[in-house]
Amino acid sequence: MSTFEQAVQADRAHVFHSWSAQDHVSPLPIAGGSGAHFWDPNGKKYLDFSSQLVNLNLGHQHPRLIESIKRQAETVATVAPAFANDTRSELARLICDAAPQGFEHVFFTNGGADANENAVRMARLHTGRRKVLSAYRSYHGATSTAISLTGDPRRWANEPSDSSVVHFIGPYPYRSAFYAESPEQETERALAHLRATIELEGPDTISAIILETIVGTNGILIPPPGFLPGVRKLCDEFGILYIADEVMAGFGRTGKMFAFEHFDVVPDLITFAKGVNSGYVPLGGVVISDPIYQTFTNRVFPGGLTYSGHPLACAPGVETFKIFEEERVLEHVNELADAVIRPRLEEFASRNPLVGEVRGLGFFWAIELVSSKETKDPLVPFNASGPAAKPMTDFTVACKEKGLWPFTHFNRVHITPPLVTTKEELERGLDITFEVLDDLASKLS
Amino acid sequence: MSTFEQAVQADRAHVFHSWSAQDHVSPLPIAGGSGAHFWDPNGKKYLDFSSQLVNLNLGHQHPRLIESIKRQAETVATVAPAFANDTRSELARLICDAAPQGFEHVFFTNGGADANENAVRMARLHTGRRKVLSAYRSYHGATSTAISLTGDPRRWANEPSDSSVVHFIGPYPYRSAFYAESPEQETERALAHLRATIELEGPDTISAIILETIVGTNGILIPPPGFLPGVRKLCDEFGILYIADEVMAGFGRTGKMFAFEHFDVVPDLITFAKGVNSGYVPLGGVVISDPIYQTFTNRVFPGGLTYSGHPLACAPGVETFKIFEEERVLEHVNELADAVIRPRLEEFASRNPLVGEVRGLGFFWAIELVSSKETKDPLVPFNASGPAAKPMTDFTVACKEKGLWPFTHFNRVHITPPLVTTKEELERGLDITFEVLDDLASKLS
Repeated sequence: MSTFEQAVQADRAHVFHSWSAQDHVSPLPIAGGSGAHFWDPNGKKYLDFSSQLVNLNLGHQHPRLIESIKRQAETVATVAPAFANDTRSELARLICDAAPQGFEHVFFTNGGADANENAVRMARLHTGRRKVLSAYRSYHGATSTAISLTGDPRRWANEPSDSSVVHFIGPYPYRSAFYAESPEQETERALAHLRATIELEGPDTISAIILETIVGTNGILIPPPGFLPGVRKLCDEFGILYIADEVMAGFGRTGKMFAFEHFDVVPDLITFAKGVNSGYVPLGGVVISDPIYQTFTNRVFPGGLTYSGHPLACAPGVETFKIFEEERVLEHVNELADAVIRPRLEEFASRNPLVGEVRGLGFFWAIELVSSKETKDPLVPFNASGPAAKPMTDFTVACKEKGLWPFTHFNRVHITPPLVTTKEELERGLDITFEVLDDLASKLS
Repeated sequence: MSTFEQAVQADRAHVFHSWSAQDHVSPLPIAGGSGAHFWDPNGKKYLDFSSQLVNLNLGHQHPRLIESIKRQAETVATVAPAFANDTRSELARLICDAAPQGFEHVFFTNGGADANENAVRMARLHTGRRKVLSAYRSYHGATSTAISLTGDPRRWANEPSDSSVVHFIGPYPYRSAFYAESPEQETERALAHLRATIELEGPDTISAIILETIVGTNGILIPPPGFLPGVRKLCDEFGILYIADEVMAGFGRTGKMFAFEHFDVVPDLITFAKGVNSGYVPLGGVVISDPIYQTFTNRVFPGGLTYSGHPLACAPGVETFKIFEEERVLEHVNELADAVIRPRLEEFASRNPLVGEVRGLGFFWAIELVSSKETKDPLVPFNASGPAAKPMTDFTVACKEKGLWPFTHFNRVHITPPLVTTKEELERGLDITFEVLDDLASKLS
């Protein structure tokens, strides 16, 4: 039996996989990686356009991240949260420096789900209100309150859970739920809908509105002009806190450290994970604005976890900030987004009959596939699986054959490579994506 | 300013602490550690009788754990859960080998809270029932469902949360809620109370009963003879699943790999974290018995997380099993428990007027302090803080002055050193504990 087959067999014998029916998973073994590539035990190499789960912002096996982990492991691998640790303090300082003025404290967690759980906990205690509003077409994690916040089908089988969450419809200009004919109108009407939801739910019952700054897995939905400032204004009007979920969009993914910097808005709480240390060690957290911090200066914050502020997780976080600066990561992302991704995707959209819309920022893009540009009917139905999802499965299989590891969701292809992907790699990944989509268009026509 | 002061100041500037009012924390900086000891930047050394948060089973900076992390970091630091990874597969295999027959799969999480969240998710979907029973005097984590399961004051400020959790009173022979006069009677009556709770709540509405096998932070409560087998029998009678929370008690803490091995019982789901890799990298998980696994072979399991089965976390897990075997860790724990801890604690209990009871197994013991052995009144009130908790605070301060880092909770001192603590270290730690308690007894008399 080959190493490859052994690895698959070892996995199938004892590992239970996320979000899956266990008889239907066939995990690819990864034997190594470097930068934008990883390879299997047969030596087959893949260009990673998924950044694993859109977390590997600095790519596979970044030597400086590896080194920072080794160094920290040799010094102090772990201490309990109640002690002080210089690496943890330094990462907290760097994050606060990167955040807007008035954010001076970080509560560290193990990932994005518990970051959102704790942000909601803070909001509820700060406001003395219980309800939380979140958007349909969103993902906020899979622990009880986080999955309740989530506005996608992954929530369904977990219901009922946190009964104090209410979902509203966010802006989505390409498929406006509000019959809007322009992004500006979409903003205006989405805000009117949100205001109505607040009024109908009772403003005094609502602690927070949580939003992925740019909706990630559910569509790379860029908020239309003025939408987020409008949310901020509604929050201020009603004494509601605004939680920005930056788990996927933060730490350079969009070409800025935090995605909300694109939209002239400042939230009250910022949650993060993934890109903070590229997921080399589990880490997430909440950046806390001063008024909320003040709530807990003399009052006990009733939350915690054994691994809060884990030194080994914070070390590659500190190194991430250094790499961003010294390797000019944001500049690289913005340059290639402008010079390569945007123009090539827009050109492709204009000529391939399956592309309804392309949208994105930085290294965070979606190609939305439709069966007809006129009707905008999705190429596969919402939440399709099995035979109904065949065109998307075909796309994925063909990309992998050609050495590209794509990210797809429903009727969309996401372009989410590591931020260290070179121009040549990016071009090659887009070439393969377009080639496979052209083939698909021919077959379907 | 000294390194010590700088470290404290750096922490206080930007780090938000768990379970605390932020103006009232004064974190001790840890500069290094080895085995059962850690030290601050001034070189002051502490014998760690807390194992940090009862997670550092193999002690501070175990060279083999450090080495395993460095090796894994150099190979494959991280892959997404959907891929296969040999280190993850190997840890899953080792855990299943250590578990009772019929447990063949592991779902990995980031820690204990999400392990319990996912065990409950599995139980609900497997049974098609929603409610979960858990015990008062318990801790199961701080995400929404986990904190709802929790039966201690940390839950209060988070209520209401998961509304499908019901608490019952577990056995506690020293303070029987059932007027029992022997451990056997306590078992009988606690089981009658649990049966009544099941019947009154509606057996068909209950998916699971979750229990810390030995209640940890809330008292090191050893289940009296026959209690856990009785729970098992009730579960079987009513089609309810039995979830054993082994987050704190598992992985050698009690002298066996899983604490339930002491009690002639096999649960349906086992949750773990902490000791699995001594918390060197955040890791937790659920060990799944075959019938529950079968539920998800052709049905999607609706839960997951970006860092499920993180290779860097699994590497020290694999190494932990090797160290347990090659360094004879369980034998060491059992030998010293029998030769040192139990006899010395029992002798001390017989002569110090503040000790109501000592109880424990392995390196997992509680000294319960009372103001009177006759009335059994706790030395400080339940959930006391501030001036009301002064005797316990005095105890802690005095221990630290003498170079011992103790673990206290309410009116109890817990003896929970790393499993690698030597006989001499153990003797010294107990000497200090007893000396300080003798002083306290004199002062209070």
